[in-house]
Order: sequence, then structure tokens, then C-alpha cells
Amino acid sequence: MDYKKIFDYTRRADAIIIFNGGEESIDKTFFYLTGARSGIFENSALIVTRDSIKIVTSKLEESAASETGIETLIFNKRSEMEDIIRNETKNFDSIGINYSSMTLSLYRDLMRMIPDKDFIDVSESILEARKIKEPEELEKIKNAAKIASDALQDAIKKIKEGITESELASEVAYSMMKLGATGPSFNTIVAFGKNSAIPHYSPGNKRLRPGDFVLIDYGALYNRYCSDVTRTMVFGRASQEQRDIYETVKEAQQKSMDAIKAGKNGRDIDAIARSIIDEKYPGKFIHSLGHGVGMDVHDHPALSPSYDFILKRNMVVTVEPGIYIPETGGVRIEDDVIVTDSGHTRITTAPRDLIEL
Amino acid sequence: MDYKKIFDYTRRADAIIIFNGGEESIDKTFFYLTGARSGIFENSALIVTRDSIKIVTSKLEESAASETGIETLIFNKRSEMEDIIRNETKNFDSIGINYSSMTLSLYRDLMRMIPDKDFIDVSESILEARKIKEPEELEKIKNAAKIASDALQDAIKKIKEGITESELASEVAYSMMKLGATGPSFNTIVAFGKNSAIPHYSPGNKRLRPGDFVLIDYGALYNRYCSDVTRTMVFGRASQEQRDIYETVKEAQQKSMDAIKAGKNGRDIDAIARSIIDEKYPGKFIHSLGHGVGMDVHDHPALSPSYDFILKRNMVVTVEPGIYIPETGGVRIEDDVIVTDSGHTRITTAPRDLIEL
Repeated sequence: MDYKKIFDYTRRADAIIIFNGGEESIDKTFFYLTGARSGIFENSALIVTRDSIKIVTSKLEESAASETGIETLIFNKRSEMEDIIRNETKNFDSIGINYSSMTLSLYRDLMRMIPDKDFIDVSESILEARKIKEPEELEKIKNAAKIASDALQDAIKKIKEGITESELASEVAYSMMKLGATGPSFNTIVAFGKNSAIPHYSPGNKRLRPGDFVLIDYGALYNRYCSDVTRTMVFGRASQEQRDIYETVKEAQQKSMDAIKAGKNGRDIDAIARSIIDEKYPGKFIHSLGHGVGMDVHDHPALSPSYDFILKRNMVVTVEPGIYIPETGGVRIEDDVIVTDSGHTRITTAPRDLIEL
Repeated sequence: MDYKKIFDYTRRADAIIIFNGGEESIDKTFFYLTGARSGIFENSALIVTRDSIKIVTSKLEESAASETGIETLIFNKRSEMEDIIRNETKNFDSIGINYSSMTLSLYRDLMRMIPDKDFIDVSESILEARKIKEPEELEKIKNAAKIASDALQDAIKKIKEGITESELASEVAYSMMKLGATGPSFNTIVAFGKNSAIPHYSPGNKRLRPGDFVLIDYGALYNRYCSDVTRTMVFGRASQEQRDIYETVKEAQQKSMDAIKAGKNGRDIDAIARSIIDEKYPGKFIHSLGHGVGMDVHDHPALSPSYDFILKRNMVVTVEPGIYIPETGGVRIEDDVIVTDSGHTRITTAPRDLIEL
């Protein structure tokens, strides 16, 4: 990764510090910039300038850091880490920090360590860099997408009357890991019957019955990059209503996806899907059309009525319209696409015609 | 959950706002207080006072919120959310926020929404509440611990010459999910041979060979609560060196665990294990003895040389000494225990004698 990229939209920062806290406050930008395959890097830092990058971490992560080939400064205890950060920043006035990730506690810690600095929010500059994927990132995302697509074929074979949502979720995760995923990129959603009307449902003990919708929203994590796919099927023969809902979502997905191209506004892509659904099922498409996919499964940018932005080449976004009818059920179809100059490349290849299991 | 608990160590806050951003800045305190089983609750808030609690969320999470029985205010767009927060806080001067979780961006957003408030860091008060587990939390953690313990027996059956680390990791995750886990509580570590010397190793394509250490560090997520277990085995007959390392770690674990009791200092517990290891393998125990386990797999408090604190009843901590010899291998044995007035209850029950597979 060309670490200089994160300075593209900031002129004032002399250096940028990526500063990780515990498990819950780790900035993925650390992994974006270092490419570290192993390691967790809690309580570690990255000091980046326009011509240098250094890892500051504990002995616990020494071998994970050494795999990256990046200069690494090892500390044994907290006070040593603080000394290193003080020393490495002594010639800089302005320190860029990632407002989107840094907690108030970490900021307070950093201010105590180097109180004489001018701290600048460089989150936009980091975001802009991370939104456009580099070739090696696209390879990882494609791999995550392929694993998810292939895993669905395996998991479908396990679907039978009486299986619970949780059991099917475990089969999906297992299939992905057998195909090389580190794990699921998020907690797999499996929703049967009317549960499919809840977009962020958590799978439970409901057993599959004939006529149920089977909604599976899942993705693979591969080398720290995500994919995100949804397929909805019917167990048994689909009713006319189920078929109508499905075909409406499918049309909304196809037409909005067809419009994706570098230079288009994300809001307009969302509007295409929304108008198709609203015409037949007004108010039943209750979320945005899509979101970026990268190291985060909900990465930037969003394809949403409220987000005005221009798609650029090598952004990766999901296209996932849905219709949700409480007490009846819901359908969502979701694919991941790479934005290109001439249109898009769909990288999730599982079939999209209605499957009656 | 008795939401009033989070006010126990703050007198000044009139209300506490838990404020979630995107996927990467969700405060688990939201789930701690609401007990929501389903939902992700991105860009949602919780407004808590000493006698009320309200969820502020979008239509997307309406049904997940309704399952909690907590009063919920639904917004359709961002500006409505801001109006709700403004309105709900209009009678308060001091607003408590969680410095340990809130990002600088979210803080800036909140300051813009309600600029006339006095914001107070209540992270310590939240932390104190969350450190001591309630009976219903202990049940969930025990369940997560039982799933992990039972899953190991299943996964061990899959161990054979030539299996890769990644394949074994997928078997461990699958076994846990079949037993009822939502998923792994973190990316499972499986390390063969010399890779076991890297505490935060990520499993790869290395194949198992006779004489290899097999280190498995894994845990289950169950109803949003975690367990965290490590076992190290030998594939084939253990060498004398492997046996010595193992027995030293086992003794360090047993003696330090035996000393755990409400009222003891965590630093002293760490010191017991450290002195046993340092006598035979100086400098080879390169991390802390343990950490809390709860909604986070690395929860508070730490059992560490640098953390001075008193153990209290119903804290849950890991005890996980390790010895790491680069290019040879490492051994770690990790269990989860509940601190009691008379000692501790070990809730991870997988056998701890050296297993030669």
C-alpha cells in the first residue's frame, strides 16, 4: 500500500498518527497501511509522514510486525511507548488524527503524551484514500466475493425441512471457512418466513417450513477484506405474492446496478431502485440501496437518498434493494460490484433467479 | 439490566447518551443496557436518565427495538434523529458520554446537535458497572464457555496429519456454531509447530506434521457474550522440551488461578504466574496473565504487572500464561473464571493435561 495516499487531501499535517486502543478501538487504517496479515495490534501506533512509516508496538506483536517489512519500534511497557511517540514526533508541529476512529479516551491520552502539538482531523483524507481500492485490495475483495458465492452452493445442499435458522447460519459460515475465509465478515443473517421482514434479524431456533422465504445475508472475510451478499429463496413452491415481491426486487436491483458507472451520483442510483419498488410496494424499501465494501463490511460510500456523491473508478459497493412486509416476509437481493469507467463489474456470482428449494 | 447502574459513579450527569455511529463505532453499552437480541443499531442512540431509558433508532431497527420492551423513538431521516435528541435532552444541563467508545467524529456531531450542554466523561462509571457481571450476564458467559469447552472435543476428532491451520480453525468455529454460538467471539487462532510461538498468529496453510504443537485459541459468542479459551496439544509424542514447557505453563496457570479471590490484587495474581515462568524461561512470558471477558472478548479488568486493582465478586477474567520460544514453539493454557468471595469458579471445562494426539 502506498501510505502517502492518506496525505492526498491534507496539506497541513506534518505526520499522521494512527493510534489503536483495545479490541473495540482499533483503527483498520492500521492494517490498510501496513498490510499486516497476522496480529491484533491493540495499544499500538503507526507514525506516518510523507516519506516514512513506522510501527510502534509491543513485544506481543513483534513477529506479526516483522512480516510487514515496515520499520518497527518495540516497547516493553506503556511508558516506553509514550517515549517513542514523543521522540518520533519531536520535529513535527501538526499531527493528523483519524476523527472517524479515534475515541475521546485515546485522544486525551495522545494529548497528554504530546501536549505541544496541533492536532488536525485527517479523517476525510484517509476516507478518500480508502474509498478507491488499489489493485491488491480489489484482488482480496474479489476473493472474498468468490468464496461467498461458492459457499452458497454448498450451503443450499444443507437446506431441508426442520433445519433451524442458526443451524443453516453455521453451515454458511463453515462453507466459507472451508473455502479459505478467515471467518464470516459479519454475523450471518438467516431468516425464515416472516422473520425475513426484519432486515437486521439475528437467526434463532425457528425451523424451516414449506412455503417459507429463506433469506441469507452473509459474507466472507478474506485477508482482512469483506464481501457481502444476500439471496432470498422459497422453500417449496413460491406463492404468487412471493413471486411478485421477488421479481420487483430483482428488477430494482438489475436496473439500478445497470446504471452504476464512474461519474454517476450515488443518490441517483438509489432513486432508480426506490422508484421501482415504491410504485408497487410504497414505503416497504426501508434502507439505503447500498454501501461500500472493503476492510469494513459497511464501508464508504453509501448509495442512499441522503448522500450526494459521485462514484469513482475502483470503488466497491453493494446493490441491495429489499421489500419488507411485516408478518408476511421480506426479500433482499444483494451483490457487490466494482465501479468502472464503462459501468461496473459484478464480483458476486451466485445466481439471482428465484430458487424454489 | 438495571440501567441505573451506569450512574453509580457519576453525580453530575443529568442524562447519559450512548451514541452509535457506523459498524466500527458501535458502543456495546447499547446492547448491555437494552439487551437487544437482534439488530445492529448503527447511527442509533440511547438516552438514559436515573428513571428512564429510551431508544432512538431508524425504521430499519424498529422490530429489533420493539423486542426489548424499551420505549423507542423512530426516525426516518437524520434531521429527525437530531430533533429527537434535542427534544429529549432539553431539560438537562449535563450530558454524560462514554469517552472509551465515542469517536471524535461522533462527539463533534453531538456537540453540533446540542451545543448548549455540558458534556461529561462517564466512561469510568460505565466501566465499573460493566466490570461486575449481573446474574443474567453470568448465565450467558457460562453458556459461551460451555459451548467452547464442548466444541473442542468435536474439533479434536478432526485433527489428522496434513490438515491445515485454516481447516482446523473452520472446524472449531463450525463446532461452536452447531452447539448454539452466534459465531466465534474472535478470529480463531490455530497455530502449528513454531507458529505457536506467535501469540496473535493468524492461521494459514501450514499442514500438521508429527511432533508439532497444536495451539488453539478460540471462543464462542453467545447472545452477545464471549468466552475465550486456549489449549495446546502435541501431535504425536511430546519431546522432553515440549513437556517441560507445557508443565511449566500448567503450573503457572494452576497456582495463579488458585490465588484468585475477591479482594486480591490482579497484579499479584499475574506475579505468581510470572515468577514461576521466569524462573525456568526468563522473558518468555510476553503478555499479561489475563483480561476480563464479557461483551468484549478483551473486557476489563486486566491481570497485568502494570494494572493495580482489586478483584471483586462476579468479575469474569481469563487466566492464560504462556511461554513463547521463537523458532521452537509456544504453549498457552487459558481458562475463564468467575471471581467469588471464597475463590473462583472455573467455567471453561476442557481438560488441561497435556494431550498427545
